[in-house]
Amino acid sequence: MLAAHSRIQPYIHRTPVLTCQALDQMAGASLFFKCENFQKMGAFKMRGAANAILQLTDEQRQRGVATHSSGNFAQAMALSAQMLGIQAYIVMPSNSPAVKKAAVRGYGGEIIECEPTLAARESTLAKVVERTGATFVHPFNDENVITGQGTAALELLQDVDNLDVILSPVGGGGLLAGTALATHHFSPKTKVWAGEPTGANDAWQSKKAGHIIPQTNPQTIADGLRTSLGDKTWPIIRDNVERIVLVDETEIVASLRLLLERMKIVVEPSGAVALAAVLKEKTSIAGKRVGVILSGGNVDLKALAAYL
Amino acid sequence: MLAAHSRIQPYIHRTPVLTCQALDQMAGASLFFKCENFQKMGAFKMRGAANAILQLTDEQRQRGVATHSSGNFAQAMALSAQMLGIQAYIVMPSNSPAVKKAAVRGYGGEIIECEPTLAARESTLAKVVERTGATFVHPFNDENVITGQGTAALELLQDVDNLDVILSPVGGGGLLAGTALATHHFSPKTKVWAGEPTGANDAWQSKKAGHIIPQTNPQTIADGLRTSLGDKTWPIIRDNVERIVLVDETEIVASLRLLLERMKIVVEPSGAVALAAVLKEKTSIAGKRVGVILSGGNVDLKALAAYL
Repeated sequence: MLAAHSRIQPYIHRTPVLTCQALDQMAGASLFFKCENFQKMGAFKMRGAANAILQLTDEQRQRGVATHSSGNFAQAMALSAQMLGIQAYIVMPSNSPAVKKAAVRGYGGEIIECEPTLAARESTLAKVVERTGATFVHPFNDENVITGQGTAALELLQDVDNLDVILSPVGGGGLLAGTALATHHFSPKTKVWAGEPTGANDAWQSKKAGHIIPQTNPQTIADGLRTSLGDKTWPIIRDNVERIVLVDETEIVASLRLLLERMKIVVEPSGAVALAAVLKEKTSIAGKRVGVILSGGNVDLKALAAYL
Repeated sequence: MLAAHSRIQPYIHRTPVLTCQALDQMAGASLFFKCENFQKMGAFKMRGAANAILQLTDEQRQRGVATHSSGNFAQAMALSAQMLGIQAYIVMPSNSPAVKKAAVRGYGGEIIECEPTLAARESTLAKVVERTGATFVHPFNDENVITGQGTAALELLQDVDNLDVILSPVGGGGLLAGTALATHHFSPKTKVWAGEPTGANDAWQSKKAGHIIPQTNPQTIADGLRTSLGDKTWPIIRDNVERIVLVDETEIVASLRLLLERMKIVVEPSGAVALAAVLKEKTSIAGKRVGVILSGGNVDLKALAAYL
């Protein structure tokens, strides 16, 4: 993880850790917010994408990289690839917002559109890889991506001593698994929890069942958290994450508003989920030192206005 | 100024300096944003209020402090006084927003309402001072307040080398005068500019005329910048500020939106004025290193929504 951190350092921001007295009072605890909403391209995804691309051989780099994503990972791959002079091929569903496609193109990524189904994504990606020889990098179910995402928690643990708990949101589990690995290694007494939307609660269900239960028909405004866990993220989460805290949509919006109003920062709905989990678990965290990973800030101003 | 800085340090945040590649590209310069929107109670005013109160004698402290303000200085005085166990008396116009009155009361300040005119403010304040023996602290036309406000620029100059220009907004001139003093002393080759709304351009007019021209009938959404310069802030600004850049209302809103969208931070309209000035002066700052003081972040979410 330390090697990954020094590898990606030239390509990422070391994001600040902010504190807020008003939120501490509300939570009855000392909260330390790791602001990945200030990360390059606006989300932690930059860390994993950069780490994965930097592990490629020169020959692989020449053929480029490919992924499928409608969200932050698409932009993270395109920007990381651009910084390293590598071609990125991004398979995006045809119904992706124009603003997200424009961002990927702005970073020099080549977009290949497909029907908005998982099957179409995968078959389109396979064709792209066959045609170009590009290396596929999975948005979260990839060891290098997981390690890269873990560097956010690593920095937080370097900056703040004696955390009792660290929370991240969980979707596919890349950030949560990376956070769990970093914490297990560098601060083994710190517990790792996750926040997850009630309407996309596959990680909670999987933990309860003891095996992966895929997400079907997710219903949440936290668009980064609609995916299922993968077979690489799941065992790490199963073994190293103590608790998954479910939060409903109104709690997510309330936390997004608190971060705007009290901390003066913009997060996307997924980025507010860890704080929502903290406020839900007030009894358990009373008096504790709690790290909260704010995962990203890519929210359209029109969408943001609807939450105000 | 260094003495003031160490004096107030326990009572303020050392706010982060953030950078943003997208805004650097737009400006054609390297911008360093001093985030006083993250300051305690949400604005730089905390610095000057704390410095002024900390200079009082024990006897003065026992009688309390008084000021008149409808904005951030009211909250800053109340909070600083509360932290030091001192009573604060705040004269506020009867039409002040309920949310601002609630914030002052939340910090333990005693509000004395008056008619919304300058004359009523001053006579009400005089009565409060007579009744309580409290020491009056002017929101900006006070040497200790000016010195305190200057510590934001001091920290920025400590954190970032070789700035060519520093910009702050200008209203009554406390922040701008403090910034000018700090810069003159600690980085004499750095120029000091200000951003000012076209609809409240008394500093620009005063500079042009060579003497104070009071603001009459200000028209701007930047509610922190509607006041006139004072006789203590004016000479410092006259002698140490090279340029006042006028910006119109649409430019202020555009900058507020850019800060939300690209930097993921919330500023109040007054807090966006220095960036608006930077973008207006693109030709002059091309390739330069520019410090930008984001003065505050206290904007109601409903008001914010109207700008999105």
